[in-house]
Amino acid sequence: MIIVLVAGATEDQIQHVIGRVESLGFQAHLSRGSHRTIVGVIGDEEKLQSEPLSAIQGVAEVVPILPPFKLASSEAHPEPSVIDVGGVKFGGGHIGMIAGPCAIESEEQLDAIATSVKKSGAGLLRGGAFKPRTSPYSFQGLGESGLKLLRDVGKKHGMPVVTEVMDPRQVPLVAEYADMFQIGARNMQNFNLLTEVGQANKPVLLKRGMSATVKDLLMSAEYILSRGNAQVVLCERGIKGFDPATRNVFDIAVVPLVRQLSHLPVVVDPSHATGKPGLIPACAMAGVAAGADGVHIEVHNQPEMAFSDGDQALLPEQYESLAEQLRAMADVLGRMLN
Amino acid sequence: MIIVLVAGATEDQIQHVIGRVESLGFQAHLSRGSHRTIVGVIGDEEKLQSEPLSAIQGVAEVVPILPPFKLASSEAHPEPSVIDVGGVKFGGGHIGMIAGPCAIESEEQLDAIATSVKKSGAGLLRGGAFKPRTSPYSFQGLGESGLKLLRDVGKKHGMPVVTEVMDPRQVPLVAEYADMFQIGARNMQNFNLLTEVGQANKPVLLKRGMSATVKDLLMSAEYILSRGNAQVVLCERGIKGFDPATRNVFDIAVVPLVRQLSHLPVVVDPSHATGKPGLIPACAMAGVAAGADGVHIEVHNQPEMAFSDGDQALLPEQYESLAEQLRAMADVLGRMLN
Amino acid sequence: MIIVLVAGATEDQIQHVIGRVESLGFQAHLSRGSHRTIVGVIGDEEKLQSEPLSAIQGVAEVVPILPPFKLASSEAHPEPSVIDVGGVKFGGGHIGMIAGPCAIESEEQLDAIATSVKKSGAGLLRGGAFKPRTSPYSFQGLGESGLKLLRDVGKKHGMPVVTEVMDPRQVPLVAEYADMFQIGARNMQNFNLLTEVGQANKPVLLKRGMSATVKDLLMSAEYILSRGNAQVVLCERGIKGFDPATRNVFDIAVVPLVRQLSHLPVVVDPSHATGKPGLIPACAMAGVAAGADGVHIEVHNQPEMAFSDGDQALLPEQYESLAEQLRAMADVLGRMLN
Amino acid sequence: MIIVLVAGATEDQIQHVIGRVESLGFQAHLSRGSHRTIVGVIGDEEKLQSEPLSAIQGVAEVVPILPPFKLASSEAHPEPSVIDVGGVKFGGGHIGMIAGPCAIESEEQLDAIATSVKKSGAGLLRGGAFKPRTSPYSFQGLGESGLKLLRDVGKKHGMPVVTEVMDPRQVPLVAEYADMFQIGARNMQNFNLLTEVGQANKPVLLKRGMSATVKDLLMSAEYILSRGNAQVVLCERGIKGFDPATRNVFDIAVVPLVRQLSHLPVVVDPSHATGKPGLIPACAMAGVAAGADGVHIEVHNQPEMAFSDGDQALLPEQYESLAEQLRAMADVLGRMLN
Repeated sequence: MIIVLVAGATEDQIQHVIGRVESLGFQAHLSRGSHRTIVGVIGDEEKLQSEPLSAIQGVAEVVPILPPFKLASSEAHPEPSVIDVGGVKFGGGHIGMIAGPCAIESEEQLDAIATSVKKSGAGLLRGGAFKPRTSPYSFQGLGESGLKLLRDVGKKHGMPVVTEVMDPRQVPLVAEYADMFQIGARNMQNFNLLTEVGQANKPVLLKRGMSATVKDLLMSAEYILSRGNAQVVLCERGIKGFDPATRNVFDIAVVPLVRQLSHLPVVVDPSHATGKPGLIPACAMAGVAAGADGVHIEVHNQPEMAFSDGDQALLPEQYESLAEQLRAMADVLGRMLN
Repeated sequence: MIIVLVAGATEDQIQHVIGRVESLGFQAHLSRGSHRTIVGVIGDEEKLQSEPLSAIQGVAEVVPILPPFKLASSEAHPEPSVIDVGGVKFGGGHIGMIAGPCAIESEEQLDAIATSVKKSGAGLLRGGAFKPRTSPYSFQGLGESGLKLLRDVGKKHGMPVVTEVMDPRQVPLVAEYADMFQIGARNMQNFNLLTEVGQANKPVLLKRGMSATVKDLLMSAEYILSRGNAQVVLCERGIKGFDPATRNVFDIAVVPLVRQLSHLPVVVDPSHATGKPGLIPACAMAGVAAGADGVHIEVHNQPEMAFSDGDQALLPEQYESLAEQLRAMADVLGRMLN
Repeated sequence: MIIVLVAGATEDQIQHVIGRVESLGFQAHLSRGSHRTIVGVIGDEEKLQSEPLSAIQGVAEVVPILPPFKLASSEAHPEPSVIDVGGVKFGGGHIGMIAGPCAIESEEQLDAIATSVKKSGAGLLRGGAFKPRTSPYSFQGLGESGLKLLRDVGKKHGMPVVTEVMDPRQVPLVAEYADMFQIGARNMQNFNLLTEVGQANKPVLLKRGMSATVKDLLMSAEYILSRGNAQVVLCERGIKGFDPATRNVFDIAVVPLVRQLSHLPVVVDPSHATGKPGLIPACAMAGVAAGADGVHIEVHNQPEMAFSDGDQALLPEQYESLAEQLRAMADVLGRMLN
Repeated sequence: MIIVLVAGATEDQIQHVIGRVESLGFQAHLSRGSHRTIVGVIGDEEKLQSEPLSAIQGVAEVVPILPPFKLASSEAHPEPSVIDVGGVKFGGGHIGMIAGPCAIESEEQLDAIATSVKKSGAGLLRGGAFKPRTSPYSFQGLGESGLKLLRDVGKKHGMPVVTEVMDPRQVPLVAEYADMFQIGARNMQNFNLLTEVGQANKPVLLKRGMSATVKDLLMSAEYILSRGNAQVVLCERGIKGFDPATRNVFDIAVVPLVRQLSHLPVVVDPSHATGKPGLIPACAMAGVAAGADGVHIEVHNQPEMAFSDGDQALLPEQYESLAEQLRAMADVLGRMLN
C-alpha cells in the first residue's frame, strides 16, 4: 500500500502517518520527492485495507497494491476451478448450458420447455419460484409449489435445476429442491444472503449487480468462499447503461477479465443483458467466443403469455438453432457444451 | 397504453394484438398511419403493465402512459406528506437533520458524537449496528449490543434514532430499539426486506440504489406503502458514475423531481454521494437549496480511527459550521431545520 | 407521433395542441382515456421531430414512432451495404481487418508493423498523423509527413490506408493521402467535420462517441449520407463505464443492433474498448462471433516505446495468433476475413 | 509516479523498468515488499506521464501522483481567478448571470428576450448562431446574420454577448461579434478548436463533455491556457446518465471539486443538465448554494415555437422569479449576482 501526502504536508503530518502505520504493526518507508512525499507500507496489506488511512490529515490518496479478494483470486489458486452441478460442468473447457423460463408457471409450461431445451442440449434447467419484481403488483412467483414442480420436471428429464433464492430465510427450503442456488443481480451485495449460501454445501450461480465493478463481484464471491463454500459460478448479465436501446449493457470484456483475476468459472446471460430476443443469439455467440464457461438463456414456449419477462425470452426453436451454432463454434475453439 | 406495431405488420398480427388486448378486458382503438399502425388501449393501465405485450409478433414498442406507482404518486396524494420521527419532522417545510457515525463503535464514541451533533441542532441520531461491507474481512457491526448503545445514547440526549436493517430476520429486533428503519442503497430492491418493514408500524428511510432510476425508487417505496406503512422518507445518496474523482454522483435534480412525482419527503446524503469531506458542506447546501426535506451527514470525532467509512466523515466542528450555514439559508428560503 | 397530455389537461390546452399540430400541416386524432387524453399525429413525422411540441402547456410527453435517421435505416435500404476500401471489403460476409500503430512515428516503425500485419492477413493499414490527445503536452502526431509515410508504406505493402481527420480544414489534405477517413470517437458529433467528409468521395470509418447512443451514432452517419457520401462504416470502440478495470465498456450488443436498424457495416475496435492487451483477443473473437463486419486492432512492435497508447497495443506475434483464430472461427460462421 | 510490478516479476523485468526510467532522465527507487515490488520515480512527473510505462513486461500498474494539468491547477495558482467579460464578472464572489435563447431566430425574438432577462438582472446575453444539432435535418442556426443580431441586440441593452463556436474556421468571425466564445459539450475535446480559441484574446466558456471526467475538463482548459489565453470559465452542464427522467445528470459536486483543484471559475447550466423547465429553478439554486461562479439559463418567450430546445427553456417570468430567489440567497452567502 502506498500513502501519498498532499503537497506541502507538514513534518508533523508526515510523522503522524508513520506513527499510525507502525502502531498497526506495519513498516513505513518514507520517500520525499520534489513535489510530494509518499509513504510505502510493507506487511500484510489485507489487514490494512479497512483502515481509514485517507482520513488522516495531510493524506491525499491511499493506493492499494494487492487485490482485496484472496480466496477468489487467481494468485491464490492459479488453476481454473471446474464446478460440477449434478453432472453439468462449468469451467476447464466445459460450457454449461442453462435454459428455462423466467418464472415457473405450471407443470405443463415447465415440462414443455424442459422437453425442448433438453432436446437442444441444455444441461441445467432454470426457473424462478421466488421472483424479484420491481412492482409489488406483479406476479411474485409460485413459491414452494414452484420449487416442487422444478425438481420434479428436472428429474423427469434428467436435468439438475437452478433457481433463485432471495431471502436468507429461504435458503434451507431452496436447498431441499435445487441443485444450484442463484443469487440475482439485485442481491449480489445482500451480504446476509451470501453468508447463508456460503454455509450451504451446494453450488451458487452469482450474478453481477447492475452497477457492480468486477472487484465488487469478486468480493461478493469472497463472502461465499470465506464461509466455506467453494462452488461459485459467476455470471455477467449486463450492467446499467445510458442507451435505452438495450435493457442493459452486456459487458463482454468481463469474461476474459474474470479469467485473468480469478479461478472461478464465468457464464454469460445475454437474456437479461440485452432484454431483446433479436440480440440474444449474437450475444450468446460472443460470450462463448470470449471464453465464457456457460450460457444462461431464458426460453418460453408462449412469450406473450409469460408471467414474467416474456418480452426477452427465446422461443424453443430459436434456442435450438442457437445451441447448434454454439456447438459448432465451441468445437472449433476446442471446448464442449454440456 | 399505446402499442406501436412494426412497419409492415400484417393484418393477422394487428388482429391478434386487438384480440389479446380485448381478452384482458380492455378496449383497443386502432389508428393506421402512413408508416405505422398503432393501437391505443383504454382501461385501468396498471393491470396491463405486467403483461408482456411487447412479446407479441408484430409489436415494435409498448408505451405506458401512467406511472406504475400509485400510492407513492402525487396524482393520488397531491399534498406533500410530513413524516414525524419521534418529533423530528421531514417534509412540509421541515428539514430533518440526521447525523452520527457510520458505525456504532463504543459508548464513548457514540456519546461524544451525539453530544456534539445535538448541540449543532441535529434532530435524529444515526449509527450502524449491522453494516453492509463489501469485504467479508471488514468490521460487520456490533449487532444487538450496538442497537442498545444507540437507543441509550439517543435517550440520554433526547434524540430519536435511525439505524440500518439488512435482513428480514432483523426487523423485529431493530424495531425494538430504533425509531426509524434505514434501508440501505444495496437493499433498495431487496423486496422481502421492503415487505417486512412495510408490515411494521415505524418510519422508513429508503435510500436510492446506486443504479436505480427515480421510477425504481418510487416502486420500492410502493412496496412499503402497499403493505400498509405510509411513513416513508426517500434519500438521494449518489448514483454510480464514471469519474473516480467522487465516490458517487450526487444526483441533485432528483430532489425537485421526486417532489413533482410524489408526496413523500426526500432527504439528501452528501456523505455517501461524494465520499469526500471537502465536498460534503457544499453539497449539503445544494441539497437544501434544491428543496430537500432533510440532510443526512456522517460525523465522527476521530475519522482516522473509525471502524467504517472514516474517510468520508465530517468532524464535529465541521458539522457545527455547516449546520449554521444551512440554518441561515433555510431561513431565507422560508423553511426550518429540526 | 403521439402526444400524451397531462392528467387534468384543460379543454383549451387540448384544442391548442390540435391547432398547433394542424397548423404544421398534420392531422390530429384525439383519444380521451379515463385518466389521460392522447393526440395521435398522422403525416410525415420526420418534419415534426424538430418541433418543440413538448413545450406546449398541458403536454406531458411526446412519443416519436419512426426512427429519426432515414438514409441510414434498414427500412429505407433493407440490403446490407458492402463498402469497398481499395479492395478491402466490409459487410455482406466480408470482415475487413484493420491494423497498425496508434500513431505513425517513423518509416522504420511503420514499415516493420505493416510487414507483420500484412503477413498476418490484415487488409487495411491504419496509423495516426493527427492525434487527439487529452493533454496539450503529449505528442500530437507527425502531420503531413506522417500522412506521406502512411501512403508510401501502404503502397509498398499493397495495403490501402485509413487515418484520422480531426479538423474540417484537414479534409482535403487527408483525402490526398488516405483511402479512408477515420472520424474519432471525440469527433462523432463534430457536425462540421461530418459535413465536410460527407462532401468528399471517400469511405469514412465513423467511431461511436463514448456517450453516444446507437441512435446518436446513426444520426451522425446520416449527416454524412445526407451530404452525398454513402460509404460509411460504423465502429464500436467502447463506451464510458463505471469500472476502472477496463478503459471503456465494449458494448458488443451494438453489433447485432446496428445490423437490425441499419444497412451500414459495423466493425469492432477492442483495442480502445478495453485498453488492455490481455483482453483484446477475446473481445475481437466476441466481435466477429456477434457478426461484426471488421476488426480494428492497434499493433506496435515496441509498445513500451510507443508515442501514443503503447499500453493497449498488441505485439505483432500476438496479432498473428489472433488473426489465425479469427480466420478459423469466421470459416465456421461462413464469413471471410480480408 | 509509482510503478507497481506484477506478482512474481523477474529480476530482469525489474532491472529493465529501472533502466527505462533512468534512460528518461529520472531516478528510480526500488522497494521490495513481501508480495510485490514497486518502483518510485522521482523527477518532473509531467514529462513522464505520456510515456507508456505500463506497456513494459512485468508492470502491473502505473500510479501518477501529480495532476496532469498544471496551468489550470490551484497548486500553480492558489488564488481564484476572476474573469471579466465586458464588465460581467465570474469568480471571487461574483456570480455571472448568463441568459438568452438557445438559438437566435430573429431580431424580434432576441430583443424581446434580452429586454426581459436584462430587467431580471442577467449580465451576459447568450444565443446560438451556429447550432450543433443531432439531426442533419434540424435548424442549424442563422450563421453570420445571427451573430450580427446578437451583437446589435446586446449593444442596445448594454449586455456583452456569448455564442458558440463549433469549427476552428469560425473563430475569427465569431471573435468579431462576440465578447466570449462558448465551446459546447460535444466539442470539449475538439483539440484543434481549443487550440484556436487558445490563441484568441477573448474569454472562453468551456462546457464539460457528457462523458468527461473533471480531469478531462481541466486538461481541455489546459489546452487553452497553454496557448496563452488565461480567460477560461468552466461550465457543468450535466453528464450522461442511465435515468431517462432527466436529460442528463447534473453533477453538482463538481462545483466544489473544481474550486479545490483549480483557480478557474465554474458556472452551472441547469437548462441542459436537466432538460426540464420544472427542475431548472431548484437546480440553479443548488448550483449557487454549492458555490458556482455563474448561472447559465436558456430563456424563450415562446418555447413551443422555438427553433431549438424549446422544451427546456424557461419563460421570461419564470426567469425573473428565479433571479430574485438567487439574489436573496446569494446575499446570505455573501456573494453577488451580476
